[in-house]
Amino acid sequence: MELTVYLAGQIHDNWREEVKSKAKDLQLPLNFVGPMENHSRSDDIGEEILGEQPDAIYKDDRASDFNNLRTQVLMGKSDIVIALFGEKYKQWNSAMDASAAIAQNKPLIIVRPKDLHHPLKELSNKANVTVENVDQALQAIQYIFDTE
Amino acid sequence: MELTVYLAGQIHDNWREEVKSKAKDLQLPLNFVGPMENHSRSDDIGEEILGEQPDAIYKDDRASDFNNLRTQVLMGKSDIVIALFGEKYKQWNSAMDASAAIAQNKPLIIVRPKDLHHPLKELSNKANVTVENVDQALQAIQYIFDTE
Amino acid sequence: MELTVYLAGQIHDNWREEVKSKAKDLQLPLNFVGPMENHSRSDDIGEEILGEQPDAIYKDDRASDFNNLRTQVLMGKSDIVIALFGEKYKQWNSAMDASAAIAQNKPLIIVRPKDLHHPLKELSNKANVTVENVDQALQAIQYIFDTE
Amino acid sequence: MELTVYLAGQIHDNWREEVKSKAKDLQLPLNFVGPMENHSRSDDIGEEILGEQPDAIYKDDRASDFNNLRTQVLMGKSDIVIALFGEKYKQWNSAMDASAAIAQNKPLIIVRPKDLHHPLKELSNKANVTVENVDQALQAIQYIFDTE
Amino acid sequence: MELTVYLAGQIHDNWREEVKSKAKDLQLPLNFVGPMENHSRSDDIGEEILGEQPDAIYKDDRASDFNNLRTQVLMGKSDIVIALFGEKYKQWNSAMDASAAIAQNKPLIIVRPKDLHHPLKELSNKANVTVENVDQALQAIQYIFDTE
Amino acid sequence: MELTVYLAGQIHDNWREEVKSKAKDLQLPLNFVGPMENHSRSDDIGEEILGEQPDAIYKDDRASDFNNLRTQVLMGKSDIVIALFGEKYKQWNSAMDASAAIAQNKPLIIVRPKDLHHPLKELSNKANVTVENVDQALQAIQYIFDTE
Amino acid sequence: MELTVYLAGQIHDNWREEVKSKAKDLQLPLNFVGPMENHSRSDDIGEEILGEQPDAIYKDDRASDFNNLRTQVLMGKSDIVIALFGEKYKQWNSAMDASAAIAQNKPLIIVRPKDLHHPLKELSNKANVTVENVDQALQAIQYIFDTE
Amino acid sequence: MELTVYLAGQIHDNWREEVKSKAKDLQLPLNFVGPMENHSRSDDIGEEILGEQPDAIYKDDRASDFNNLRTQVLMGKSDIVIALFGEKYKQWNSAMDASAAIAQNKPLIIVRPKDLHHPLKELSNKANVTVENVDQALQAIQYIFDTE
Repeated sequence: MELTVYLAGQIHDNWREEVKSKAKDLQLPLNFVGPMENHSRSDDIGEEILGEQPDAIYKDDRASDFNNLRTQVLMGKSDIVIALFGEKYKQWNSAMDASAAIAQNKPLIIVRPKDLHHPLKELSNKANVTVENVDQALQAIQYIFDTE
Repeated sequence: MELTVYLAGQIHDNWREEVKSKAKDLQLPLNFVGPMENHSRSDDIGEEILGEQPDAIYKDDRASDFNNLRTQVLMGKSDIVIALFGEKYKQWNSAMDASAAIAQNKPLIIVRPKDLHHPLKELSNKANVTVENVDQALQAIQYIFDTE
Repeated sequence: MELTVYLAGQIHDNWREEVKSKAKDLQLPLNFVGPMENHSRSDDIGEEILGEQPDAIYKDDRASDFNNLRTQVLMGKSDIVIALFGEKYKQWNSAMDASAAIAQNKPLIIVRPKDLHHPLKELSNKANVTVENVDQALQAIQYIFDTE
Repeated sequence: MELTVYLAGQIHDNWREEVKSKAKDLQLPLNFVGPMENHSRSDDIGEEILGEQPDAIYKDDRASDFNNLRTQVLMGKSDIVIALFGEKYKQWNSAMDASAAIAQNKPLIIVRPKDLHHPLKELSNKANVTVENVDQALQAIQYIFDTE
Repeated sequence: MELTVYLAGQIHDNWREEVKSKAKDLQLPLNFVGPMENHSRSDDIGEEILGEQPDAIYKDDRASDFNNLRTQVLMGKSDIVIALFGEKYKQWNSAMDASAAIAQNKPLIIVRPKDLHHPLKELSNKANVTVENVDQALQAIQYIFDTE
Repeated sequence: MELTVYLAGQIHDNWREEVKSKAKDLQLPLNFVGPMENHSRSDDIGEEILGEQPDAIYKDDRASDFNNLRTQVLMGKSDIVIALFGEKYKQWNSAMDASAAIAQNKPLIIVRPKDLHHPLKELSNKANVTVENVDQALQAIQYIFDTE
Repeated sequence: MELTVYLAGQIHDNWREEVKSKAKDLQLPLNFVGPMENHSRSDDIGEEILGEQPDAIYKDDRASDFNNLRTQVLMGKSDIVIALFGEKYKQWNSAMDASAAIAQNKPLIIVRPKDLHHPLKELSNKANVTVENVDQALQAIQYIFDTE
Repeated sequence: MELTVYLAGQIHDNWREEVKSKAKDLQLPLNFVGPMENHSRSDDIGEEILGEQPDAIYKDDRASDFNNLRTQVLMGKSDIVIALFGEKYKQWNSAMDASAAIAQNKPLIIVRPKDLHHPLKELSNKANVTVENVDQALQAIQYIFDTE
């Protein structure tokens, strides 16, 4: 049995590579999906496809058409969602993805440093699991496959 | 026809009073619900009911039991959700509430200053309406009742 | 028992007044809701609330935020949807509303002149009832209340 | 990961061939489904299976039984819906399919020439993405698979 | 607390009057709804509203548009469904209504004479309760209100 | 693309063999499922597994546990349901299965002789397609795969 | 705003009276519903309505038809469910009701003595709130109405 | 066709091995999933992943995060749920799993010794099938595949 895991979170660094690499080392039968990680392409995709937009807000809204389409398709195919939070960036998109997962009854693992517990308290409370690092997130998933 | 409106957003100032007052002036047949606005009580409600918790994280988790229960009941009774965002605070709870509204097919109005368009782009894109202030939010609702 | 009826269809003439007037004559316990019938206000509502938009397409998209919000709230409160089609206008919005009603399991009555049967065939086939004029639509609803 | 794409739209020309051909050139892992494109067979299918019908309206209604059955099965198997609109034909069936996709939470891409923005404004507003040609629609889908 | 009860079953005699009369004697706070009980009007309603149909099958299909619309609206408003079966008539419409109730998670009480247990076995098995007469059906409902 | 088809209907003769055989001749990529066709085993399965029951009604109820379990699992896996009706037998189980399919949004094809149109009128009206024999039912399905 | 609260739990003592009395003292706008509290009537209701059953198992199964019907109707009308657990009795019915509430997205408050935390751990984890006594449960509900 | 079966029940002995072994002997095309059967690991998994917890209640709550995540994923992938009950242990987790299955419309087979019929009466009544041992449970499943 293979599980598809959606990796929600900021796209400013390549934290997902660490997750995939560690999952591979653990030989977990997982297929990872997620957003476009090329941050500037993600921001520009609306103009890339539709042409220049009148201002920054419309540039963002057109980009979001394509990014949200991607997320809807890929999260729709996912069995579990991992949402990572960190100190930097607003991460309202991450919170939106995490909450959408819960509302769609998709199991959700939140990964956040301990000192972000307060602003994430309501979301953590509704998620299945809250951990502090990706190793623990993978342990949570590994446990699903363990027989002893 | 009366509509119930859930006011999601930070609880650090009384912006909701402005919304209710303006709605009253406009004579809109609205019933407003929302979170506990006494910020320290909201943080302490877990310990208030269940007693002292072992640490800050568990204090937050227990408070979230009661705050999330309240939100689930009141948002469940709502016809529309207004989610306000501002420059201060993480507002991951606000993003969570906004996203939950969308996922439950509850109409969502996002209120945010113009310069927060970028971090809110995906959420704005999925919401029904994005405006910059509560007057516009009330205009959006007023329009539902207008016959001309 | 009162029923709320959403009147979907073009907003270029006041056909809804005829429906309401006839329903009143029949003393049907119905509450009618529908879109903004002031056609230019409906087209301008985006700019009315949010200010001038960069072009006609964005003017339409912003107006649609508010018109779709209104429809979502009012159709959500409806027990039955009547969708009227005629010779004039594209009426893709009417077809969208009719199809949304079906998908949400809301009973749908289509009103269309006989000679529009061909382009409406698939929608008529999925609707509960297809009639040729509003009198027949009201007869369909009257029948729900009849005891003999 | 392969995606199944439902191509909704008029069946008076073979625009779907262009989509499939271009998707193949792009090596997109897509499986395309759609309505019966033989227009006269689509119109006649009711009589083809059930025999001659009393009039044109019933001929259409019987054909719609089989066409709607086909759409329900194939759209049910689809991950994404592309709905194409053009200047010719009423296209109420296309609008119906597009709206049904949205209501079933199936991602929707609308393809329409720029000058049809006004009659399609409400549907475009609810769709995930609106583009002007099939190349852009395929770019939207290509983007789902892109990793950089 | 008042409950709305849909009375599904044949319309060839006035068994529903007995149910309503007995419920009134028991002072049960129930509102009863059901199909058109005037059997010939029920069969003719399609032609009554739309005019003469080409044959008996289309006459039935048009009547069913209006009868099914009525059932969908009234059963949609119901809290409980009682479906009565007897020795006479095919009663496939009754079985359809009973099964629709179960599928919509509406509590279902089946009333049938003992010797019809075999053809109704699967439906009885899925229903909440199977009784032999309307008195027992009303006892089942009375029990919902009892406090001792 | 293979479709799974549930064959609902009486189990007193082997009409399903005809369907499967014809489908094979047409080379339709279909997988057929259905109820236990050994009529006495179907009636006895409760006692076969659980032992003798106190009376005929309980024998039927216990058998229905296992038959309904089988139907729920197999219909759940189906893409289309064909429900056959004939002159003999009450067929309330068939009507129950047909109605359950509709309520679960599973496409339904009803097969019935012409002269049963009246008692089946409401069910036919809600089904996707009503035909008179299994050849037409297979044509309806064949049409889903046809490209011209 | 009044809320309806379903009180799930054993029916061997009148703990519900304490809840209702305390809620009244607190002037909470609550309407309480729950199972038949007359324990022997609850056990006997099947035989009371349908007559003597062949054995104890069937007596229980027939009683459960009526008790489950009552629960389905009353829990369906509820906004919140309180499920009480104690040291005595198997309480599998209580666990069933609690889990059904969660699955139907009805907010759930579990009341249990501290030393039952271990066998209730999974259910507590999925419930909104777990408290140790009815006073705390009412505080959780009171909090929903509090404005400061 | 292979079916996935979730084995819910106590994890204090290896009854699941018996089920799997017997299913294998019967050559049933089944894939079995279930909870972590290493009882102490199941209790400790929260501390194993997250570190020592402040007390026994929090140790249980953290363990339940991971156990409920596992159940949600695996039950989500299941076609049928078998829930076993016995004389020992509270088994509120088993009742929770059984009830969750019913609420999610997943077919449920309850296995329980005859003399536990009374405390399980309501759950048995809502389940598809209640049997007394795993052989009968496998017979119920075998019957789904039988053609004669």
